[in-house]
Amino acid sequence: MKATIYEGNKTFTVIDKEIEQPAQGEVRIKVAYSGVCGTDVHIYHGMMDKRVAMPQTIGHEMSGTIDAVGEGVEGYDVGEKVVVRPLDDRKVKASDKGFNHICEELKFIGIDSPGSMQQYWNVPSFVLHKLKAETDLKLAALIEPLSVATHDVRRSGLVKGETAVVLGGGPIGLLVAMVAKEVGAQVIISEVNPKRIAKAKELGFDAVNPIELDLVEYVKSKTENRRADVVFEVAGVQPALDIMCEVAGIRGRILMVAIHGEKKPVDLFKFFWKELSLIGARVYEKEDYEKAIELITLNELPFSQMITDVQPLTNIQQVFENIDNNPDGLKVLMDCQL
Amino acid sequence: MKATIYEGNKTFTVIDKEIEQPAQGEVRIKVAYSGVCGTDVHIYHGMMDKRVAMPQTIGHEMSGTIDAVGEGVEGYDVGEKVVVRPLDDRKVKASDKGFNHICEELKFIGIDSPGSMQQYWNVPSFVLHKLKAETDLKLAALIEPLSVATHDVRRSGLVKGETAVVLGGGPIGLLVAMVAKEVGAQVIISEVNPKRIAKAKELGFDAVNPIELDLVEYVKSKTENRRADVVFEVAGVQPALDIMCEVAGIRGRILMVAIHGEKKPVDLFKFFWKELSLIGARVYEKEDYEKAIELITLNELPFSQMITDVQPLTNIQQVFENIDNNPDGLKVLMDCQL
Repeated sequence: MKATIYEGNKTFTVIDKEIEQPAQGEVRIKVAYSGVCGTDVHIYHGMMDKRVAMPQTIGHEMSGTIDAVGEGVEGYDVGEKVVVRPLDDRKVKASDKGFNHICEELKFIGIDSPGSMQQYWNVPSFVLHKLKAETDLKLAALIEPLSVATHDVRRSGLVKGETAVVLGGGPIGLLVAMVAKEVGAQVIISEVNPKRIAKAKELGFDAVNPIELDLVEYVKSKTENRRADVVFEVAGVQPALDIMCEVAGIRGRILMVAIHGEKKPVDLFKFFWKELSLIGARVYEKEDYEKAIELITLNELPFSQMITDVQPLTNIQQVFENIDNNPDGLKVLMDCQL
Repeated sequence: MKATIYEGNKTFTVIDKEIEQPAQGEVRIKVAYSGVCGTDVHIYHGMMDKRVAMPQTIGHEMSGTIDAVGEGVEGYDVGEKVVVRPLDDRKVKASDKGFNHICEELKFIGIDSPGSMQQYWNVPSFVLHKLKAETDLKLAALIEPLSVATHDVRRSGLVKGETAVVLGGGPIGLLVAMVAKEVGAQVIISEVNPKRIAKAKELGFDAVNPIELDLVEYVKSKTENRRADVVFEVAGVQPALDIMCEVAGIRGRILMVAIHGEKKPVDLFKFFWKELSLIGARVYEKEDYEKAIELITLNELPFSQMITDVQPLTNIQQVFENIDNNPDGLKVLMDCQL
């Protein structure tokens, strides 16, 4: 089998290795597609070398079929289509209060342990979610990032008739926007990259550039002055932090989806004054995966347009180099069916 | 009647004026006690001269009895004990989404219009809450700040068995701590002023100095490592903002009670990582007043120890000068029954 390994120093190599038997409690998955996540790009950039045990196979946005079932695994059969919820919560403690998905000792499979950028992948069976036989495996590779979006939207409490402003129109921002629209909310995307604005419009969204217009006034004009009920901060930049408190209306909920590595100035007075809430959201819970699987199975949202490139797994080095040179692309899938 | 007026420039004067008839929809209250709020001290310091139409009577933490009832007012009788919820929401708009207590055009009575630091006070009847005949009017002057606390605790969703850390042991911090304890939570107060720590202990609280011990380790030791379920940020200083994200456990809720006039650095990564929530809380709603009235009526919490001084209304200038020189005091009441 072919496997890719990240060696550090912006370098992936493709190796040949033996196909391994699944250990007790594990299944072997024949990986179909493995999407490139922003986190994978961070790893490529050397930003996560402390967590990744190089040389290591990375990747966690995937789809595949069960290829072999280890001892003690029940309820899964060879040939079944599955996706992996890459959270290893086996070290959960009472102090995690039942929030296993973000438990203190969580291991993220594909970062803290080997990932899906290979032909065959052995994983513990508790991370599996089954797909229907007719599910498109390309689209199914979007289930992991889509689950981030279903989690974010669920945490926000967004309901039909409310207005959501999504700050940042990258892959996660667009998926959040899709889920928010599916809930029945009015959705406005704020994005500065003209190509991403065009893409968002192509996907049917109201997308505006906050450099070219006054976002707050625009949102007020679309909400009879109520402003946003929910703001998704997916941009990760200071101007987004500044505007999130302005664009949110009274009792607005702001979802902190972006990762801010340093302390950043926040207008806490606005939190007091308008009784805003800032709600952190990280990865997903089981029900978020089920919701994402339901949406992908229904396939009524423009998911396929999210996939801007599909490349054979063996092109991995080229793919990561290209992503660096092309910030306009959305989701790139590695085809692992060589 | 005697009335006090704030003239600007850290100056109050006491004047004689005619007792006025209540206008249509108003009642005249014979004020019993009027507490000095931190906001009143801000006004005295000239920090709110843009909102206060000097010369103006200020004050909004009060108790009294109805002295006269204006035309069109029903359900109130002369002699009834009342407190005022000093929120004039008559300009509420649809875009306020029903959150009248923080509506965009809210006028705060006692800041934006004349207040209670006088013998008789005319107010619209919709701001009144009735007290029982046996209610102690000194304690009743605490209902307004206590309602801030009942609002904060209600907004936090704090329940029995959870742990609340209160950052800041001033009057509002202590009232928040009392309400949190009454809910059945374990309460830990963090305060740097030794006299306030001593006072908090006197009131029966676990109070610690975060300069002298590691607050996070202390809270972990008291919660089997769960840390705080709820943190009330009542201190308004950067070290409190820094520690609030540390001391909060997984899915912790942080209540933003303090007023931060400028943008401040916040560890947003922790919000993402632990799925924390930051919840803004301002003033109170009707039900928070009702809860505060219930608590004052029951009088099972150490409210009387919150009142560290009672002075005749005519001493107002001296009282404000003393507050500036004595940061250890808690609540000072002006006795308006001259």
